[in-house]
Amino acid sequence: MKRIGVVDTTFSRIDMGSIANDELRSMGSGFRIIRRTVPGVKDLPVACKKMIEEEDCSIVMALGMPGKEPIDKTCTHEASQGIIQAQLMTNTHIIEVFIHMDEAKDDKELKAVTENRTREHARNTFYLLFKPEKLRKQAGTGQRQGFEDVGPVDAGEQSTFKH
Amino acid sequence: MKRIGVVDTTFSRIDMGSIANDELRSMGSGFRIIRRTVPGVKDLPVACKKMIEEEDCSIVMALGMPGKEPIDKTCTHEASQGIIQAQLMTNTHIIEVFIHMDEAKDDKELKAVTENRTREHARNTFYLLFKPEKLRKQAGTGQRQGFEDVGPVDAGEQSTFKH
Amino acid sequence: MKRIGVVDTTFSRIDMGSIANDELRSMGSGFRIIRRTVPGVKDLPVACKKMIEEEDCSIVMALGMPGKEPIDKTCTHEASQGIIQAQLMTNTHIIEVFIHMDEAKDDKELKAVTENRTREHARNTFYLLFKPEKLRKQAGTGQRQGFEDVGPVDAGEQSTFKH
Amino acid sequence: MKRIGVVDTTFSRIDMGSIANDELRSMGSGFRIIRRTVPGVKDLPVACKKMIEEEDCSIVMALGMPGKEPIDKTCTHEASQGIIQAQLMTNTHIIEVFIHMDEAKDDKELKAVTENRTREHARNTFYLLFKPEKLRKQAGTGQRQGFEDVGPVDAGEQSTFKH
Amino acid sequence: MKRIGVVDTTFSRIDMGSIANDELRSMGSGFRIIRRTVPGVKDLPVACKKMIEEEDCSIVMALGMPGKEPIDKTCTHEASQGIIQAQLMTNTHIIEVFIHMDEAKDDKELKAVTENRTREHARNTFYLLFKPEKLRKQAGTGQRQGFEDVGPVDAGEQSTFKH
Repeated sequence: MKRIGVVDTTFSRIDMGSIANDELRSMGSGFRIIRRTVPGVKDLPVACKKMIEEEDCSIVMALGMPGKEPIDKTCTHEASQGIIQAQLMTNTHIIEVFIHMDEAKDDKELKAVTENRTREHARNTFYLLFKPEKLRKQAGTGQRQGFEDVGPVDAGEQSTFKH
Repeated sequence: MKRIGVVDTTFSRIDMGSIANDELRSMGSGFRIIRRTVPGVKDLPVACKKMIEEEDCSIVMALGMPGKEPIDKTCTHEASQGIIQAQLMTNTHIIEVFIHMDEAKDDKELKAVTENRTREHARNTFYLLFKPEKLRKQAGTGQRQGFEDVGPVDAGEQSTFKH
Repeated sequence: MKRIGVVDTTFSRIDMGSIANDELRSMGSGFRIIRRTVPGVKDLPVACKKMIEEEDCSIVMALGMPGKEPIDKTCTHEASQGIIQAQLMTNTHIIEVFIHMDEAKDDKELKAVTENRTREHARNTFYLLFKPEKLRKQAGTGQRQGFEDVGPVDAGEQSTFKH
Repeated sequence: MKRIGVVDTTFSRIDMGSIANDELRSMGSGFRIIRRTVPGVKDLPVACKKMIEEEDCSIVMALGMPGKEPIDKTCTHEASQGIIQAQLMTNTHIIEVFIHMDEAKDDKELKAVTENRTREHARNTFYLLFKPEKLRKQAGTGQRQGFEDVGPVDAGEQSTFKH
Repeated sequence: MKRIGVVDTTFSRIDMGSIANDELRSMGSGFRIIRRTVPGVKDLPVACKKMIEEEDCSIVMALGMPGKEPIDKTCTHEASQGIIQAQLMTNTHIIEVFIHMDEAKDDKELKAVTENRTREHARNTFYLLFKPEKLRKQAGTGQRQGFEDVGPVDAGEQSTFKH
């Protein structure tokens, strides 16, 4: 049975791990979810790598909610670089789900964006692992997670490219 | 038979993978194209590395269309660093084709730039793999992908260097 | 017996290593603390990696107090990237505790923030090693180290997610 | 016979590879020059690494002419990071010769700077490989490539340090 | 007999390698100094790594004097990242001694800062290798290299932490 890792933080103001867990469970069965919590986003890269190499996860979700100060932006950048590096060292996808606190105008919107983005990326995680052809069909369609999709530039004409 | 990887995203607003596929097929035969789609540009580095190491691709095109916000610029920077790292870890070229949404003034121009740059880099990909001498002849000629070529500084005088 | 590494700097204006040491000792027994001091934050990554690989530490605290000039910010960024890299190379957590000198308005506040953050991260270090379920329970609760916790967005409603 | 790699780009507006080739040949014999051309500076890191590991080069010159836009600066930064990484992975020097298009006020100056810097770094490349003591004698003398040398701060007094 | 590497540049306007050499010799005997000179700071990372892996150095000093332009700041950042990476790949300290040309108001001050910082870091290098307990005693005392020490925040009260 495949294992999906879900790692979140105590820094986040919303329990993102439970949202991811809930959405993943709704997608199907045949996999087990392993969860961990670390202090902040900079602790995510090694935690995700350990999930892959020590807990045998086939894919991992890295969940974080960075603050709005410049120092938070720098930390997030470092965390993202580390998450990409961890993927390259393991040949395994880690889906980063970061909600920046300044993306939302108030707590209510922050909650909506967080829930939406986490659930949409939980689906992407499931698709990458079990149904990659689902993503293949969405190529170039302007998908967004958290806010409304932007959509493709000109769907009609695009069909002239040979698939 | 050599394999060329083509990886694109669901975030892009144009089906770049199909453009690349179409152009590559027009260049010749004797190779197979393997395609994958991931959510966004930050998922490209590991996807490309897996194409090389798990799908036996000899070269990969990494196709993405980053947004115009500062956060998008940061993500793209991280993706580019990861793509360079993936190349160094595999001794294999990955041709990055990124179109920034703010490079074009409207959807029509965005489409033209995307198609032009993707097709030109598909040709570069083909040349790197099968005809490196084609690139050698273009050394220092101010080639651009997506917009018009800038051209060499002073072609006449340059011929005084010994080749 | 597990070993916890504590590395600090001569650049810091407060003896952070002794604070960490004091707090760790108050958490329990059954572990040994190994200490090192290096000149500045850029010397921390390799010092921490040596603690893991040459001194057999199971986790390390990296303690530093960067200055307020732009060059200090750049150095800190480089140190943080190195600390993340060291973790990925060893599959071992390194808890970074950095206090930026411009976070506090005067020496008194600097001392309070430094002591508070160092002690809170010493507890996180202990939990990561011995009681990860303690962090799991704090997932998404807006924990902060050094200043007051921000708290969760909407604790009541969150309980509707299935754990 | 030792091999020196020379890698340039089709993006550059001047045939830098031929300048480097010409200068290297003027320095002496006893080595062979291997040349490659890639599309842009971000393709240089892996191309240089392949020169070292697949073409047996003992040193490589990485030649590029980045544009003046902010995106070009970011690409160049990524290329430079990759070139340093490639060196660390191979324990082999790669001499980066980048001319930024906005360093020169017009095409004529651009050409002069490009030729001067490329030739001076070709000499550095030769010295690193065959005569490291030549560089040793220039330590701390304010050498510049492309524009005039700045020179040492105070040559007379420096001689009081013991060599 | 242990070996200490000293690597400097031709770009620097002061012969930093000789200052380091002079100070190291004044610290004691029982070690050998190996010196190299490279063109600029971006050539330092691989040169230092070669000193460790090919010349058997137990520690290395990386000496450079970056210019004051934005491009110089970027190069220095890349060099520093590479130096940290080289340390992580070898589990060996490399003490970076960089003097930014805009740190000093004139050549006289530049010379004083360069000499002071290089000598102080030569002592740190010696201590790291032979007397790490010397650094341990300076933990949190606000040491600076090149300018006056800042000193600890509140030495009296700190003594209440248990060592």
